Amino acid sequence: MTTLQGVTAAAGFSAAATTAGIKPSGKSDMALVVNQGPEFNAAGVFTRNRVVASPVKVSREALADGQLKAVLFNSGNANACNGTQGDADARAAVAAVAQQIGLEPAEVAACSTGLIGELLPMEKVQAGIDKLSGSLTENAGPEAAAAIMTTDTVEKQTEQTGDGWVLGGMGKGVGMMAPSLATMLVCLTTDASASPEALDKALKAACDKTFNTLDIDGSTSTNDTVILMANGASGVTPSQDELDAAVLTACADLADQLQADAEGVTKRVKITIEGTATDEQALNAARTLGRDNLFKCAMFGSDPNWGRVLAAVGMADAEMDPDKISVYFNDQPVCENSTGAPGAREVDLSGADIDVRVDLGTGGPGTAFVRTTDLSHSYVEINSAYSS
Amino acid sequence: MTTLQGVTAAAGFSAAATTAGIKPSGKSDMALVVNQGPEFNAAGVFTRNRVVASPVKVSREALADGQLKAVLFNSGNANACNGTQGDADARAAVAAVAQQIGLEPAEVAACSTGLIGELLPMEKVQAGIDKLSGSLTENAGPEAAAAIMTTDTVEKQTEQTGDGWVLGGMGKGVGMMAPSLATMLVCLTTDASASPEALDKALKAACDKTFNTLDIDGSTSTNDTVILMANGASGVTPSQDELDAAVLTACADLADQLQADAEGVTKRVKITIEGTATDEQALNAARTLGRDNLFKCAMFGSDPNWGRVLAAVGMADAEMDPDKISVYFNDQPVCENSTGAPGAREVDLSGADIDVRVDLGTGGPGTAFVRTTDLSHSYVEINSAYSS
Repeated sequence: MTTLQGVTAAAGFSAAATTAGIKPSGKSDMALVVNQGPEFNAAGVFTRNRVVASPVKVSREALADGQLKAVLFNSGNANACNGTQGDADARAAVAAVAQQIGLEPAEVAACSTGLIGELLPMEKVQAGIDKLSGSLTENAGPEAAAAIMTTDTVEKQTEQTGDGWVLGGMGKGVGMMAPSLATMLVCLTTDASASPEALDKALKAACDKTFNTLDIDGSTSTNDTVILMANGASGVTPSQDELDAAVLTACADLADQLQADAEGVTKRVKITIEGTATDEQALNAARTLGRDNLFKCAMFGSDPNWGRVLAAVGMADAEMDPDKISVYFNDQPVCENSTGAPGAREVDLSGADIDVRVDLGTGGPGTAFVRTTDLSHSYVEINSAYSS
Repeated sequence: MTTLQGVTAAAGFSAAATTAGIKPSGKSDMALVVNQGPEFNAAGVFTRNRVVASPVKVSREALADGQLKAVLFNSGNANACNGTQGDADARAAVAAVAQQIGLEPAEVAACSTGLIGELLPMEKVQAGIDKLSGSLTENAGPEAAAAIMTTDTVEKQTEQTGDGWVLGGMGKGVGMMAPSLATMLVCLTTDASASPEALDKALKAACDKTFNTLDIDGSTSTNDTVILMANGASGVTPSQDELDAAVLTACADLADQLQADAEGVTKRVKITIEGTATDEQALNAARTLGRDNLFKCAMFGSDPNWGRVLAAVGMADAEMDPDKISVYFNDQPVCENSTGAPGAREVDLSGADIDVRVDLGTGGPGTAFVRTTDLSHSYVEINSAYSS
């Protein structure tokens, strides 16, 4: 199997990774991705949480003009909820990167992930930036993907090939995943030529269909960031449709990897809702079900307890006919007209993938799709011993 | 310690309990509470879930005229999502009670709790009703409280004494607890004289302040029912304020018992939100925090991870100043102006009770209070092996 190059797969992007000592584990914890041009167009999507980490503020400002030349990453510390000192530290970090590699601070974005509420160890960060700046190469994508991991168990990379151009990327994220992103960092790079507007359109559409349908625990991080950079090094300008398709495929690929590696996951659950008035109502119902702990525990136990599906969707903000709800597990009917179907208790849910389809019975055209996971002992284990 | 009489504490109420064989465990699983008059005024509060169990439909109809003479209970089977057969079974059960003790079917309510989507074993139910009708006594409150338990580990009863009158009751509920009640059944009885309107006012106000602030897992049952019956046997007509106070105290007592016995609970968490525009916004924030699995796992781990509090409330539908949020654990400040307070990581949360207070920093008058629990291994264990 060929090793993916991820964020350095596209021409004209270099990267570096290092161990700065931010993580107590001694694993790599800083990375830098640099766009060598000739173009520096970029787009970003950020957390909708009102409590926003300092690096998100810095990155939003850097991306405001649709131009970006580098992104600094660290894991092990989220630099969130650190007040004005946190903002100053994030700005100092991008300024140090800019100085080291000859850019303006406003051309550098920052992404952090890890514990909230601890100040960044700036001496270590500064030393890390010095090392990163001196070791940029065009094949460090895999090392960068490893350096942004927290409780991730595997690196997450993607590569898509267009007609004469390439789109690559890396991502991380294992918990706090909710429709408005996750403790999720994604960086996509392409050597296609594309305007900031084209990138923004492609990225927003892809996020809506991929990361925003991923709901592990209803929690939304303060640090979520997805960045897409394009340098035109291939000399090819794909159509908007071609760009949209490549970005969507890359995001879907990373979303699949994120779901598979979600904290404590033993089941990957895909929820489809049909038969309500609008897509928005269907999405409300899908999210309500995907966040219902009793339903998620039943999935962990491979238990075809369809009654919990009805109890959950019955609370959703969606039109439904309470007497005509149907539920299918792995395409087998388990509930029809809101009553149990023959053999419903014997449906086999022992596999790692479970499809749940619910028809809310109004005959309306609304549909929606959400990915979630089960609620397992490991989820509790991992998340009850995080900061201590 | 004197044994509480619970639902038979007030004069003129009798009860019975029996083992009908609905529960595979062989424990008692049916109960009957009968009001002997002279008055038969009553009020009820029911689940807001749109998927409604058959006994809830029957009880709503029975209570429509503010009159009620008896309530039939069964555990082990929710009689929910059983279609028209479920409705017919619930009607047949109350008709059988009515026939046995000389009432009209419309004078009898029904409450069921247990697995969703299984038909009631009507032969066993009928035999159970025969036994219950023949064994009514004025001191069977404790037995009735035991017969409505599912995964409850203890009976839940209350008794409040007014000036010459008594209010008693029983309750059950351990999971699926959310602001619009729970898999929660509560029956309150009083020998005070009170109109249906006075009872309704007292009960709705008390539910809003007690059961509706209890949020274990954001799930809301199809069967939730709270019934209050008054027979005037004491000859005393309390003022509305006196009635309100007694009903509130009884509901608060049962809510405390429900929270303490919630599935897998190792921590009782009280959440207070302040400093937002309105009480409604404060309640939104309190519920968002109370349902956040990452926060609940941190509580299980006795981990003062206040960053998760900020990440959770940041997603709530409430006005806040993201730079001025304060968090207190057990009255100790752990976060001020959205940054960590000195010693925040050392706060001791090892006790079973944790108070969490969050000021959203707008200076507004909105406040709200919600009770929740931690998310523990036992919660996952209990709820992943429920129906199988």
